[in-house]
Amino acid sequence: MKIIILAGGKGTRLWPMSRKTSPKQFLKLNSKTLFKKTLKRCLLLEKPENIFVSTNKDYSFLVQKEFKNANLIIEPFSKNTGPAILYALKKLNLKNNELVLVCPSDHFITPDSEFVKSINKAKEIAKSNHIVTFGIKPTSPETGYGYIKIKPNQFKVQKFTEKPNLKTAQDFLNKGNYYWNSGIFLFPVDLIMQEFEKYAKDLLEKTEPISIDKAVIEKSDKIAMLPATFNWSDVGSWNSFYKTQAKDKNNNTTLGNTILHNTKDSLILGNSRLIACIGLKNITVIETEDAVLVANKDDSEKVKQIVENLEKQNKREAYEGVKTLRPWGSYEIIGEGKDYKVKKIIVEPKKRLSLQSHNHRSENWVVIQGKAKITLNNNEYILKKGEAFFIPKKARHRLENIGDILLKVIEVQNGDYLGEDDITRYEDDFNRK
Amino acid sequence: MKIIILAGGKGTRLWPMSRKTSPKQFLKLNSKTLFKKTLKRCLLLEKPENIFVSTNKDYSFLVQKEFKNANLIIEPFSKNTGPAILYALKKLNLKNNELVLVCPSDHFITPDSEFVKSINKAKEIAKSNHIVTFGIKPTSPETGYGYIKIKPNQFKVQKFTEKPNLKTAQDFLNKGNYYWNSGIFLFPVDLIMQEFEKYAKDLLEKTEPISIDKAVIEKSDKIAMLPATFNWSDVGSWNSFYKTQAKDKNNNTTLGNTILHNTKDSLILGNSRLIACIGLKNITVIETEDAVLVANKDDSEKVKQIVENLEKQNKREAYEGVKTLRPWGSYEIIGEGKDYKVKKIIVEPKKRLSLQSHNHRSENWVVIQGKAKITLNNNEYILKKGEAFFIPKKARHRLENIGDILLKVIEVQNGDYLGEDDITRYEDDFNRK
Repeated sequence: MKIIILAGGKGTRLWPMSRKTSPKQFLKLNSKTLFKKTLKRCLLLEKPENIFVSTNKDYSFLVQKEFKNANLIIEPFSKNTGPAILYALKKLNLKNNELVLVCPSDHFITPDSEFVKSINKAKEIAKSNHIVTFGIKPTSPETGYGYIKIKPNQFKVQKFTEKPNLKTAQDFLNKGNYYWNSGIFLFPVDLIMQEFEKYAKDLLEKTEPISIDKAVIEKSDKIAMLPATFNWSDVGSWNSFYKTQAKDKNNNTTLGNTILHNTKDSLILGNSRLIACIGLKNITVIETEDAVLVANKDDSEKVKQIVENLEKQNKREAYEGVKTLRPWGSYEIIGEGKDYKVKKIIVEPKKRLSLQSHNHRSENWVVIQGKAKITLNNNEYILKKGEAFFIPKKARHRLENIGDILLKVIEVQNGDYLGEDDITRYEDDFNRK
Repeated sequence: MKIIILAGGKGTRLWPMSRKTSPKQFLKLNSKTLFKKTLKRCLLLEKPENIFVSTNKDYSFLVQKEFKNANLIIEPFSKNTGPAILYALKKLNLKNNELVLVCPSDHFITPDSEFVKSINKAKEIAKSNHIVTFGIKPTSPETGYGYIKIKPNQFKVQKFTEKPNLKTAQDFLNKGNYYWNSGIFLFPVDLIMQEFEKYAKDLLEKTEPISIDKAVIEKSDKIAMLPATFNWSDVGSWNSFYKTQAKDKNNNTTLGNTILHNTKDSLILGNSRLIACIGLKNITVIETEDAVLVANKDDSEKVKQIVENLEKQNKREAYEGVKTLRPWGSYEIIGEGKDYKVKKIIVEPKKRLSLQSHNHRSENWVVIQGKAKITLNNNEYILKKGEAFFIPKKARHRLENIGDILLKVIEVQNGDYLGEDDITRYEDDFNRK
């Protein structure tokens, strides 16, 4: 069996924690990222060489941070799961009607053992020439999910219903033979290609944004559904995240430095600040370096509207946080004004930034941890903790971590223009092995 | 008439904005500080030389920032309004039975014109040998205030009741001849000294923590009450602050960078971060550099419990914020770790820090605005924007602003111990005139 992990989604529904540059699957909340958990599950089923990660160029280094030597399938577009799966299958060019498991990387699933059991059981159904979907027994009348109808105790799918209204969702919940579509698929490769050919021929020639569900699954008569025995959540909102988490005796989930008085049924995630809550009920508080969300927990799906609103105003907070992950490490803006900016730069051991120069700013670097090699024009300098270095405007320079621990540098930029685009690169960001 | 402004209170009821080092009266919210507003009102009544500010050593430079050349009365203790007023009166040593007006500096009063009218009217009553209090017509059954009972249409006070229970407060509200005690007093100096002698003789010899109300006002039979025609709030909680503020069409008061969806009756004060609110009703959100308060607005008096809780744990957030005001300007911690700290230091023109040294840390300074003179051991150096300077451990050094605009410096500290108490001062912080 081959496994394709889908990791190209731009999920911002967990804003302000998730942003376009750090989507849901790569978020570290109170534990491993959802991507890492997905990978861990898949490694219980297959060896690393049989696991492929479909993502885009921007996220490839995020995948590599979590999965060293990952088999990457870099899709040249971002057009939903239909084209993504098709592109991966073409790249893999599998023989012998091999089985393929497709897994989203931004869902929450427990326990791993039940996931493995479900997949193994599904293999038998797939081998009898079926595309297997995994149905989740509904626990509430969710209107944001797709529903799969089966005949009781049968695998054959009777009908798909995408995002029903509340009345219909409640009806499905009562009837008992409707399941949530988990977005996980298992199929023999020849069968899925045959169904693409049959129901989505256009997609074979021209890439259009469409989900695999709309393109094939909802049309094909080869679909079977296995009721999943694992717990599943799409973590599609803070409320949905809250439901996956452990609670204290007042039914609160907290993270970070929090003080709660007379507060219940709430989700309080602190990052760097103290969060004090008094007399709250059913409230979500999410604190990040540059934004704080306070919402009625039942309204947490409306975060989408906030992000859309920010996008319309072209505000940075919609797209990225103050901490930006880079192939060589990360940087974080810790202070800024009209004509200065202070960054904390972290470089991983043996990695370095590109050789570069700036036309409008000088930089002062102070090492606060580790050992740096600095290239300035044609010279090299070694800097230790507590030492500082001045980079004049227009000088070619490079920062490199030559130690065994993280290199941490405070950079103070001074200049009349401080945009990230004032950079001339003389080579790409380089990851020395 | 002489005016005594009381500005020694340590009010932290507007935590996390107010802290012990930056109490309520010196907070800049969306306008001038309450102290400045109080001063402005008093200047409508008297010339600056007749206005005296009673405060303590720690706050004297905060007063001076708001009131250049203020007549300061620095009380050697912090023991409530009784000793504070008595100490000020002794210092002033007034003759000819002069009138004295005592004003708290942390109350909200509008409009100034009505305040002036009330004081002028009260002068006549005071001259007939009365201690005049100013009564506020209650608008709600507050249990945290003192109540004054008068006979309808008379000045003479019948009874004081401090902090009644809710039932009693409601009863007072219904009756109509009970007023809130505003804490503003006007009296002839000989009369108040006579009443101190009569009812609080101990206080003349020995300082004890007691309010002027408990010590004299509630006992004396010389008390008159004038119903105030101005609007008044003691701004004793965020809810009480909210009531003094302008509201938008959804009855919200906001400050800073906020986005509100379906939110009403709420107080949202942002500082440096974006605050997004969804589906809130009657909620207070106060965001500062190091702490966020989210509270049911009706519970905002319970902030006190949060601060007490923090004090018990000896947490910095109870006492001071990340920005600390100093006689020469201010500093703010913008980043810190185990063995480094990054500060933004602002020095006012022509001012300088003390000559000092540190045993456990070196410092790198980068100028981001203005012009600095740096003393290092026996040498002096001039630093301009963009330039950096290294201060080794144990070196005597001083930072001075020799320009005409604010000097801004990023300081990166490195060391095994970074406490503010690792400092040897060779002279006091110095304010060059």
